[in-house]
Amino acid sequence: MAPAPSPLAFIPFVSVENMMRLVHHFGIETMLRELTDAIEADYLRWHLFEKTPRLASHSKEGVIELMPTSDGEAFAFKYVNGHPSNIAKGLQTVAAFGLLARVDTGYPLLLAEMTLLTALRTAATSAMVARRLAPAGSRVMAMIGNGAQAEFQAIAMKAIVGIEEVRLFDIDQAATQKVARNLAGSGLRVVPCDTSEDAIEGAHIVTTCTADKVYATILSDNMVGAGIHINAIGGDCPGKTELHKDILGRAATFVEFEPQTRIEGEIQQMDDSYPVTEFWKVLSGEAQGRTDARQITLFDSVGFAVEDFSALRYVLGKLEGTEYFQQLDMVADPDDPRDLFGMLQRAAA
Amino acid sequence: MAPAPSPLAFIPFVSVENMMRLVHHFGIETMLRELTDAIEADYLRWHLFEKTPRLASHSKEGVIELMPTSDGEAFAFKYVNGHPSNIAKGLQTVAAFGLLARVDTGYPLLLAEMTLLTALRTAATSAMVARRLAPAGSRVMAMIGNGAQAEFQAIAMKAIVGIEEVRLFDIDQAATQKVARNLAGSGLRVVPCDTSEDAIEGAHIVTTCTADKVYATILSDNMVGAGIHINAIGGDCPGKTELHKDILGRAATFVEFEPQTRIEGEIQQMDDSYPVTEFWKVLSGEAQGRTDARQITLFDSVGFAVEDFSALRYVLGKLEGTEYFQQLDMVADPDDPRDLFGMLQRAAA
Repeated sequence: MAPAPSPLAFIPFVSVENMMRLVHHFGIETMLRELTDAIEADYLRWHLFEKTPRLASHSKEGVIELMPTSDGEAFAFKYVNGHPSNIAKGLQTVAAFGLLARVDTGYPLLLAEMTLLTALRTAATSAMVARRLAPAGSRVMAMIGNGAQAEFQAIAMKAIVGIEEVRLFDIDQAATQKVARNLAGSGLRVVPCDTSEDAIEGAHIVTTCTADKVYATILSDNMVGAGIHINAIGGDCPGKTELHKDILGRAATFVEFEPQTRIEGEIQQMDDSYPVTEFWKVLSGEAQGRTDARQITLFDSVGFAVEDFSALRYVLGKLEGTEYFQQLDMVADPDDPRDLFGMLQRAAA
Repeated sequence: MAPAPSPLAFIPFVSVENMMRLVHHFGIETMLRELTDAIEADYLRWHLFEKTPRLASHSKEGVIELMPTSDGEAFAFKYVNGHPSNIAKGLQTVAAFGLLARVDTGYPLLLAEMTLLTALRTAATSAMVARRLAPAGSRVMAMIGNGAQAEFQAIAMKAIVGIEEVRLFDIDQAATQKVARNLAGSGLRVVPCDTSEDAIEGAHIVTTCTADKVYATILSDNMVGAGIHINAIGGDCPGKTELHKDILGRAATFVEFEPQTRIEGEIQQMDDSYPVTEFWKVLSGEAQGRTDARQITLFDSVGFAVEDFSALRYVLGKLEGTEYFQQLDMVADPDDPRDLFGMLQRAAA
């Protein structure tokens, strides 16, 4: 018998199945609230993070990205693809996993699926921003684009911002029906709409989350009244936007990490002099958020590595005392670190 | 009961334990020979590969790197750390794992430990180069630095180049004794030496593989005679070299990917006009290898992402029909790709 691997060799791994169990164990609203606070706490430590551009490998079908960051104690990266053509093949357009590691030794701490976790952290980030920027007393959200992210967005806005009604629109009615079905029993009043104009009627928050990789106009200028918050999460890579640029001209725009959003966000339509505020500055008090009830605030969200870092650290903390992980023998750990070959030889015995 | 994940959700994972089983199942010499041929085949497709600089996150204790590449059909990356101080903590200085994915869908194909696999691919790469550049009839190798890589290097040089005698030197005698013990029964004549001068005596190939992150002089100019091949694998990051620069002045130097080696290799000591040959050009016939029996050829090896790509693809190919892998549920795969939330809801049932 080969000797058993040492405890150092094992890395906890959270599969898709276990991530779902974890969510149900703690409850999705509790997890979204805690995750929102975890991301906010990390945004308040903004200066500690190593902020690298993501590493993207483009092909004609899509993109594969590695998104790393570090706060000097932990290092995290997410592997994520974006393949709009996957839908036609019955595959997810986005699949992701991530890793957290110790900076002082380089040893991994956690490997986790991040397709579900990304949906959760994206919704938590949207809610973190909306609870600071949306008009006081916001109760109604329009949800334009009813794909994989929609329910997570709606539930986060309910749990963290106090949204009571969600008004749905998608060019594909089946998508709207799916969201309405899934949100029955969520405690939200769900209103399917026939046009995006209907959906926006009376909304305090407008969330846009459509998937096409094109310069689209999901919202045109005349559709957008005063005193709303726009949570724009679909325009998130070069060549993919959702808002007419005239809306940007009237809005106060907030971003995650300006150099990345200039390339990937709605503001790729504007020149470099267009003013934006990095949202962490609102949290730290270095910049103002909403200044006027009639203002249009816009969160031009593209997804940033710090949010994945927060999500992975949050999940690692929740695992303790649960059984929602497997131990993976992923790191060779010989008795004598220089004796890798001896470890291999002894395994043959 | 929640429905079982679909087959699309599963990714084969090769643990350290299974990688060791795989090596013993096929035999280490067979694997090194086949891996050498796999890397050579990919070097002959050099132009197809996306060659990005590695993404490095430096700290005072070490470095964590992501090394990605793609040939347009498959994408691979390796996570690898380098922490010299780990030895004192009883940890590996280098731990690694890697992933292979499809470019057309972004879906992962294989996750594997790469601490052992990196030792194998580094030895295979050294042997691939030495079989083209070492003097004809090379039978004796000196091995300066008897750490974790030493035995792999010796066995690859035996299996692929025909080395019969390996002469060992390390400033730590215990390291030399470890290698001598591990190579007993390998078929190699093993000669422990008291000085590096002794080790080099009569050697046709000199492999240097020491670990200190310093500008060291493992080989000084007067130690190196004519008609040898130097396989320098220890000098592999900024501030870490092993050879006196006068040796570089006399040698014909071959590298993996010039822009990376200029920063990380022995040639960081030379100015940019110092001539080097990318080794793939020797394989393709675009450049000459050894031109003279009395020449000093130098392989200034730093490790390149294409070698990891080859190693992962090779391992994936070998898995078929074996039991040396686990299936990891790493990718969410709902029946309807837009219905991620519905998948989560149904899991609660």
